[in-house]
Order: sequence, then structure tokens, then C-alpha cells
Amino acid sequence: MRLYSYWRSTASYRVRIALNLKGVVFQTVPVDLVGGDQNAPGYVALNPGRAVPTLVPDDGAVLTQSLAILEWLDETHPAPALLPGDPVLRARVRAAALTIACDIHPVNNLRVVGKLKAMGHSQDEAVAWMNDWMMRGFAAFEALIAPATPFCFGDRPGLADLCLVPQLYNAHRWGCDLAPFARLTGIEARCLSLPAFDASRPENQPDAT
Amino acid sequence: MRLYSYWRSTASYRVRIALNLKGVVFQTVPVDLVGGDQNAPGYVALNPGRAVPTLVPDDGAVLTQSLAILEWLDETHPAPALLPGDPVLRARVRAAALTIACDIHPVNNLRVVGKLKAMGHSQDEAVAWMNDWMMRGFAAFEALIAPATPFCFGDRPGLADLCLVPQLYNAHRWGCDLAPFARLTGIEARCLSLPAFDASRPENQPDAT
Repeated sequence: MRLYSYWRSTASYRVRIALNLKGVVFQTVPVDLVGGDQNAPGYVALNPGRAVPTLVPDDGAVLTQSLAILEWLDETHPAPALLPGDPVLRARVRAAALTIACDIHPVNNLRVVGKLKAMGHSQDEAVAWMNDWMMRGFAAFEALIAPATPFCFGDRPGLADLCLVPQLYNAHRWGCDLAPFARLTGIEARCLSLPAFDASRPENQPDAT
Repeated sequence: MRLYSYWRSTASYRVRIALNLKGVVFQTVPVDLVGGDQNAPGYVALNPGRAVPTLVPDDGAVLTQSLAILEWLDETHPAPALLPGDPVLRARVRAAALTIACDIHPVNNLRVVGKLKAMGHSQDEAVAWMNDWMMRGFAAFEALIAPATPFCFGDRPGLADLCLVPQLYNAHRWGCDLAPFARLTGIEARCLSLPAFDASRPENQPDAT
């Protein structure tokens, strides 16, 4: 299985965690988003959204959009499960995951920040923009997860945790004030002590610089 | 079942279509996003993301995030199915839906456009911003759906169609140039000829002004 990925992409990071949690062997194919690899015609033919990740299982299917890839992984490699079995609980876990995947990440990704700068905004303004969406999103996320469990929804990590940890990586990177979110940074510490999360860290990827 | 909704919210529109396609009887509870109803403490307790839709089934569960609601609906009210059965096909439908739900809508919603204006940008600049993300997103979406089917992935509408039609409503509203996307506007016309889509149109909601 090949994962087209960029080391700092939080969407790629989510999929790496899931692959590692499920023990799926994969090969990383770096796509340098800063260098513009995502716009090369050969890559656009694989991923028309010009984004990472793209997962290509050995049967040659081409899967895009991290959340669609994660659902596919959970359907085809069920253990350990990323989602619970009960429909309402599944909806709650997905709602937390989507709070990061829809309400924080898309507003803060490289192309949006690049566009803000092209519209005349400074790096400081771009960082303030990112941190504002993170603060609002983390507050919503914390209210949506289960109260007082070691991980977001129980005693082992699932879909919400593997969206949270990459977004917190970005939060640390941009100096977001995480003091109000001790529950979330506690979950992060527990996750990162697990080998599947540790192996998935941006700095442990072959294209890390 | 109660749907907390705003008539012009494209995320609410997606859920209305799914409820109507599946023949689920529901009551609309208007949340006036322009008037700030989403920030009222009583509503934030239901929906910490301060967004619509929120779906409250008769058993009292509180479901947020439109895509999580749609997956729950498909799991609990399976006919007609919004997703196919095969995992790879499911991943392709979800990837198209997420191209709208992650790559277009979150960057263009009311709070993001409000923030751009608060940062000094004009209405014309905000509209150009929205149309740029729509043009990029529609191009990716069109490349991800099945070629030459009446609807996005076959001969009846599903998850991708019910994300597309609301986003095209927004595209028309803001004068987005849809001439390059005849396939998509053809699908839109077929969808809107169906009673479930027609009943879900923004202008047919009780809070439309």
C-alpha cells in the first residue's frame, strides 16, 4: 500500500496513525506541498483536489480525502476499530472528528494561509487567524467528547483522537495558547506514548526536514 | 425529530434533503445565524460548535455536524441508501462529498466571510474569495465523480449529490461562473426535479425571508 503524504500535513498524519494502529504495512511517497508537487499533472490525475493524503492499496484503487480513507480503513481492516458500534456513539465520535476536519483544518491549511498572504496579510496576521480558529474549534471539540475518559471516547484511541493529535501538533507549531485545554493535551500525551502515534509523528517521516 | 436549521445554511440543506429522501418526518426549528441565535447559551449547550444543523431524534440524542448526521441517518434509516455497499465505492462517494464539505464550504461560511470583512476586506473581495474556492472545489469534485451518469455516482442521488446541490445554490447566489461545470448543473437540474430536493430548497423553508 502506498501513502502519498507530506510530513507536516495534519490530514496525512491522521491516516498514518490509523495505518500504524491497525498494523497495515505501507510505503510513504512524499509530496512536497511547499515545493508544489501537488500541482504536478501526474499527481493531479491521482488526486484532483491537489492535496494529501492519497492512499493507493495494492489492488490499485486510488483513495483521497483523509476522512474517506479512514472510514475505508475501518471497514476493510476492522481491528482495532476507529469507531464504536452503536449508531449514536458513532455519530458523536464523527462529530468530534469533523469539528477538527471541517471547522479547523480547512480554514488553516497551506493554500488558505497562502491566499491570505497574497491578499496582503502579514505572517503575524496569518498566525492570529490560525490560532483563532483553533481556539474556537478546540473549545467545541472538548465539549463534544466524553467527559473524563483517558482518550476522547473511552480507554483507547479512535477516530477523534487521531484527528486531535495532528491538530495539536499544528497548535504547538503556531504557539496557540493551550492552557485552557488541559484535557486535550492530556489525551495528546497518552496518545503520543503509544508506538503507533509515535511512529506517525511528522518528525519521524522520511521527508521531514 | 427536530432539525435546528437555517434556511440558507448549505449544511442544513444537505440534511433536509436526506431526511426528505428517506421519508423521515421532522420539525424545523429555525436558528437565525445572521441574528446570532447560534451563540445563545441554550443553543451552545446543544451544539458547542455554534453551527447548524443539529438533529434531535425523538429519543433525545443530540447530533451535530452534517456529515455525522448523514452517516447516522444512513445507518438507522437505510432506504434509500446514501452510500453504496462496496468499501472502495463508499470511499469514492465520501471523497466527493468531503471535497465540498471540507474544501469548499468551511472556507466560505458566514463566520469566515465575517472575519475577512472584520480584517478590512470589501464585499467584492469576500465574493471573489468564495468563488475562487468554489471554482477549485467544483473542478476537483467533477474529476472525482463517476463519468456520464445521471447523478454523481449512478442513476439515483446519494451523499455526493446532496452535498453538491446546496453548494451550487451558494454558487448561484454569489454569481460563480458555472459555465465550465455543465455536468454538475445537469445533475443539479435532475436533483431539483425530485420532490425531496424541491421540498428542501432554502426558499421553501419556514424561516426563509
